[in-house]
Amino acid sequence: MKAKARAHANIALIKYWGKADEALIIPNNSSLSLTLDAFYTDTHVHFDEHLAEDEFILDGKSDPKTLVKISKFADLFRAIKGINTRVRVKSVNHVPTAAGLASSASGFAALGVAINAALDLNMDAEVLSTYIRQGSGSATRSVYGGLVEWQKGSNTTDSKAVFIDDATFDLGMVIVVIDKDEKTISSRVGMQHTIETSPYYTLWAKDSARDLEAMKEAISNKDIDHIGSIAEHNALKMHATMMSANPAIIYMQPDSLKAIQMVQAMRNEGLTAFIAMDAGPNVKIVCKLSESDQIVSRLKTTFKDEQIIVSGPGPDAYVLEE
Amino acid sequence: MKAKARAHANIALIKYWGKADEALIIPNNSSLSLTLDAFYTDTHVHFDEHLAEDEFILDGKSDPKTLVKISKFADLFRAIKGINTRVRVKSVNHVPTAAGLASSASGFAALGVAINAALDLNMDAEVLSTYIRQGSGSATRSVYGGLVEWQKGSNTTDSKAVFIDDATFDLGMVIVVIDKDEKTISSRVGMQHTIETSPYYTLWAKDSARDLEAMKEAISNKDIDHIGSIAEHNALKMHATMMSANPAIIYMQPDSLKAIQMVQAMRNEGLTAFIAMDAGPNVKIVCKLSESDQIVSRLKTTFKDEQIIVSGPGPDAYVLEE
Repeated sequence: MKAKARAHANIALIKYWGKADEALIIPNNSSLSLTLDAFYTDTHVHFDEHLAEDEFILDGKSDPKTLVKISKFADLFRAIKGINTRVRVKSVNHVPTAAGLASSASGFAALGVAINAALDLNMDAEVLSTYIRQGSGSATRSVYGGLVEWQKGSNTTDSKAVFIDDATFDLGMVIVVIDKDEKTISSRVGMQHTIETSPYYTLWAKDSARDLEAMKEAISNKDIDHIGSIAEHNALKMHATMMSANPAIIYMQPDSLKAIQMVQAMRNEGLTAFIAMDAGPNVKIVCKLSESDQIVSRLKTTFKDEQIIVSGPGPDAYVLEE
Repeated sequence: MKAKARAHANIALIKYWGKADEALIIPNNSSLSLTLDAFYTDTHVHFDEHLAEDEFILDGKSDPKTLVKISKFADLFRAIKGINTRVRVKSVNHVPTAAGLASSASGFAALGVAINAALDLNMDAEVLSTYIRQGSGSATRSVYGGLVEWQKGSNTTDSKAVFIDDATFDLGMVIVVIDKDEKTISSRVGMQHTIETSPYYTLWAKDSARDLEAMKEAISNKDIDHIGSIAEHNALKMHATMMSANPAIIYMQPDSLKAIQMVQAMRNEGLTAFIAMDAGPNVKIVCKLSESDQIVSRLKTTFKDEQIIVSGPGPDAYVLEE
């Protein structure tokens, strides 16, 4: 009844923004992401008969706020197994938490994989992803490495992750960390406000489906410029949709705009560099790994070394030896 | 065959973005603006039989780039009068040129009023506005003071300015000048690119009509908070629409976002302060004139004195004594 697992964060190239089913976390549009090698969460679970309550220790500290979600998530698996045993969860994040670097994605994916092993449930990754989805939407995609689609589906069994490509064709990302603090408006609240007040939201979801098809074709062509260009248009459309809410949601910070302007300038100089911002201030740059040194050296003229992180594609989530 | 006129700049509260007729400058949506007391252009015209070519002197310097537009504009009036006399135009801008502070608006309005007087055409302001429109779209609204609608109309005679209200109910603006340089993408090019590539553009124009009706009601109620809230939503929707173009157009600068965040913070503290940015980096804040001192003192913690300008409503464009 113990196991340990590792899952990597992912950054969407076609964004997820808005739920069709709030409780089951079924999205309004399918999304597609790159799992990143540089960010991951290690999670140890122990279903222990001696525990009176579930416990959650994140980076060495008790986290009662997230514990509520984790208990609810563990209940899904306890129900399958027909047990009521409490669980002790210990997670170590190798991700700046809640700064738009998708720590909840790697977190819930690692937790799902660890529970699946601890309880001997033997779910395959696709089925497991439908449970992980109910912990955190974007975590769905972190069960696989490389490029992963989250098919929106229509119910809890077909809204799942599908592996697309291992992405070993020079595709990479440079992340500029603008703000490590927790963002002021959570994705959940931001999505809801956008759906309720933006005149553009319906079109956003519709248009994403077109972007996704174009993205899959660009991936099959291993065309990084095209992948980047579609990703940037999709990401900025998401930010545009938020900005058209009433009142507007603006996740960009002044320094985010500095990074965006640098990306535009680099591109004008011939580098492959495209913006893929999530709902937060940090700027992700889709690039060729072989050009990442050049991109990093430009960014260092404005940002500190520790604000800049390069990543290639990460692996599937997996069980760690204890 | 000489006259001098003054016209004031205007800032749209319901924005103009996109043309239905490129040549005649007939817009896709009606707009509404506040004419500002603090910014104006004085223009002297002299139709002189001795001139071989039109001349244009702006702020004491010859401006051959704008001269082409001015000659074409003067041709409209020469055709009515049945003359071919060349004109010398001398303008002095009391507006930071081309920084989104609508110098072309006050410029073409002053020029139109001066020509109307010099050639004794006796057009009333509404008719004159249909000619001024053909010089610069937003100039249409600068023929009147206070709050002015530019009715989009459907042809060159009914796409015109209509006076709405003198705005003497404590309505004002604080302008934060972020960048005085000419913007990198002109409004004309930006509009065209948005129409061609933004999936949201059609909805923008449709939605503006609804915003305009709400704005007129808020004006008739002299409800400055409501006026500001509608203006901010409309302005940020325009910026959102540009951001959804492919590739995105982002007129905001890092310092624009600083000012925007300050406006959001002031509002949370109970001040009436709303964003009304045009296609440029400068930030205009819709406010109560009676609260402008408080707004200015907040802004001075971050911006220099000379970057901050307060304005109340300006007057109709008028002929100056020589």
